[in-house]
Amino acid sequence: MLLLKNVFLNGKTQDILIKDNAFAKIASHIEHKNCKTLDCKDKAILPTFCNTHTHASMMFLRGVGEDLELFDWLENEIWPREDKLTPEMVYHLSRFAILEMIKTGTTMFLDMYFFVDQTIKAAEEMGIRAAITYLGMDVFDENETKRRQGLAQTFLSNDSTGPLIYKGLSCHAVYTTSEALIKSFKEYTRKNKTYLSIHMNETQKEVSDCLAKYGKRPIQLIDDWGILDENTIIAHAVHLDDDEISRIVRAKAVVAHNPTSNLKLNSGQMPLQKYLERGVRVALGTDGVSSNNSLSMISEMKVAALSAKSAANSSTAAKTPDVFKIATENGFEALGVKAGKIEEGYLADFMLVDLNHHALLPNVNLVSNMVYSADSSVICDVFCNGKPLMLDGYVAGEEEIVENFKKVCKELS
Amino acid sequence: MLLLKNVFLNGKTQDILIKDNAFAKIASHIEHKNCKTLDCKDKAILPTFCNTHTHASMMFLRGVGEDLELFDWLENEIWPREDKLTPEMVYHLSRFAILEMIKTGTTMFLDMYFFVDQTIKAAEEMGIRAAITYLGMDVFDENETKRRQGLAQTFLSNDSTGPLIYKGLSCHAVYTTSEALIKSFKEYTRKNKTYLSIHMNETQKEVSDCLAKYGKRPIQLIDDWGILDENTIIAHAVHLDDDEISRIVRAKAVVAHNPTSNLKLNSGQMPLQKYLERGVRVALGTDGVSSNNSLSMISEMKVAALSAKSAANSSTAAKTPDVFKIATENGFEALGVKAGKIEEGYLADFMLVDLNHHALLPNVNLVSNMVYSADSSVICDVFCNGKPLMLDGYVAGEEEIVENFKKVCKELS
Repeated sequence: MLLLKNVFLNGKTQDILIKDNAFAKIASHIEHKNCKTLDCKDKAILPTFCNTHTHASMMFLRGVGEDLELFDWLENEIWPREDKLTPEMVYHLSRFAILEMIKTGTTMFLDMYFFVDQTIKAAEEMGIRAAITYLGMDVFDENETKRRQGLAQTFLSNDSTGPLIYKGLSCHAVYTTSEALIKSFKEYTRKNKTYLSIHMNETQKEVSDCLAKYGKRPIQLIDDWGILDENTIIAHAVHLDDDEISRIVRAKAVVAHNPTSNLKLNSGQMPLQKYLERGVRVALGTDGVSSNNSLSMISEMKVAALSAKSAANSSTAAKTPDVFKIATENGFEALGVKAGKIEEGYLADFMLVDLNHHALLPNVNLVSNMVYSADSSVICDVFCNGKPLMLDGYVAGEEEIVENFKKVCKELS
Repeated sequence: MLLLKNVFLNGKTQDILIKDNAFAKIASHIEHKNCKTLDCKDKAILPTFCNTHTHASMMFLRGVGEDLELFDWLENEIWPREDKLTPEMVYHLSRFAILEMIKTGTTMFLDMYFFVDQTIKAAEEMGIRAAITYLGMDVFDENETKRRQGLAQTFLSNDSTGPLIYKGLSCHAVYTTSEALIKSFKEYTRKNKTYLSIHMNETQKEVSDCLAKYGKRPIQLIDDWGILDENTIIAHAVHLDDDEISRIVRAKAVVAHNPTSNLKLNSGQMPLQKYLERGVRVALGTDGVSSNNSLSMISEMKVAALSAKSAANSSTAAKTPDVFKIATENGFEALGVKAGKIEEGYLADFMLVDLNHHALLPNVNLVSNMVYSADSSVICDVFCNGKPLMLDGYVAGEEEIVENFKKVCKELS
């Protein structure tokens, strides 16, 4: 048990009792014997972030081939390096990505990459919640379809992982992955009561190509295939027409919004305010660092707010509570995890921020300060599932994580 | 004298000798007796930022009236608070703003606000370079014109300030300020060999109103008045037609770009890449915190890059060296200060950043990492004019600055 004393929450000073992995009691004064106590004077408690779309192990690609044309970048910089990846490298890359996430206040992420067992191992060792997906992409080759189907089923059926790992599946996109593979992946996730994530409607070109090939827009296509439901997580969804928005709303599917990546790759600006008003369940993600180039959800919130105002042509679009909510509560909710709010009964994923930090002053509107003026230096402590991941800015073992990351980058350069 | 040992600069480890207030020698190995030495192993040296457009003392307005409509916000939240400002309050607000600038790597700013003597006092005490302007705005009232003209001349003629204060003048905008006032302010600045800053072409409405009133677009108007020259700093310049761009290029005037403010207030997206290609001298600024809500130039660079790609409809627009340059070198150059580069003969305004910080790894492209993945937590030390303003993350007297700021905010709430 852990007792937080004198912590700032929703405009008041409170005590908070954490029992096992959840908030047990929140009151103006709590006394409790035989319980570890943390004095939180001049600190506020906030929910941590859930990053609903990333490719964590791409950390080695940060700044590599910056400012090049897409295919030049992929063919000459990215793919040759990715070809050299080994499982052990992915383990170290995952640890480094998780270090950056913890330092910037994230306690859960949804990952799409290779050598998933290594990312699971890294996440379990570091104590973070991780929604790890086995990735389906067959480039329309039937042998590859079968191989991936087998591996996906093995991945889901192996239940040796701990309670903070949320296994699911992902598919790359309709322009790289066959109908058979996507349909079977949805079937497996339904059977296992888990989620499926897929890149959809990211660029205008993707939409045009899909119309040319299938006579339908991407979301229309997969909805007609029966893929859309409340456990489908659509990454990007920049270019949706009205019918596609309606289909997503009707199915209660989730959109994982990646505003920085969409701007950096010039994919377009997702109309966040419109989607929220239409009732779409929107969550936030950073995408991989090669198109961001950070895993910080704090930075992502500011870009989300600014991009949404531009897309809506209105300064009152994307109000700060809405932006904070898509980065926290909505992400956890999308993955079926009762976290993202500081309330009794919720899982104890939280951060403590320094109320004397210049970027959080004046403390008139803490949520607005987090969205627009904060950076990672406001965060003192990060807890996940009731346990500390960072105390006073320090993550256990961080020097070794950094050293191993540097070694891997050298081997991949 | 100060000797920096083993500091990372442009891909190499170097020693750097600082004599008086400038970089005297840069070489792979420098020995020097009787000289303070700073071991910079695992640190890189970078130029600090020049924030070319801000209203520093607005710090008390951060988060106040967030997400409201413009006039509701101004009339009910902003103006009633500003009416209560006293000179002493502006002194404390300026100190707090300067603290945030130092913590985020800025060593020079151009300010437009009231009670300028107080901001000068704060800047001199804290050792930062400050381009302080006396602000002209007469709302077309002839008595006010005369009063401001007198005060502006007194301000410029009083030469009791130290070497880090760069006095100039500013005018609010053509929709609030008369032709007579703007012309006289330009005359005074020419006589005193200094600069004039003015908000121009910020919104589409400003352009339409100017066309309706004067039959000319704003830049066309002030150019015909003879205001544009190489010492004119145009804040915002979001909406320029081709003729206005040509006039700015011909006059060698500077554009102070404020991408976050422009997006947050939904003023529009300035086409940065187009201006750079046309040869406009562009520098970067944060504007005041009420429309940002931060004075961090690191955050501003990321928004500048993303906004520019969107405005240009190209992922290769706003390359990272260009974005870094507008935030550093171009700002100092606009104000006639030989800083913003780490080269022999340049003023020793610089920061040391931690190369083992997760956000700067891998160290493949340091400039890209600063633009896209860094936040203020990468900065260890900040020097201005050869003197330390921040060492190991600590600014002398910061606790007191924060306490006084909190008191002032309470009085203004």
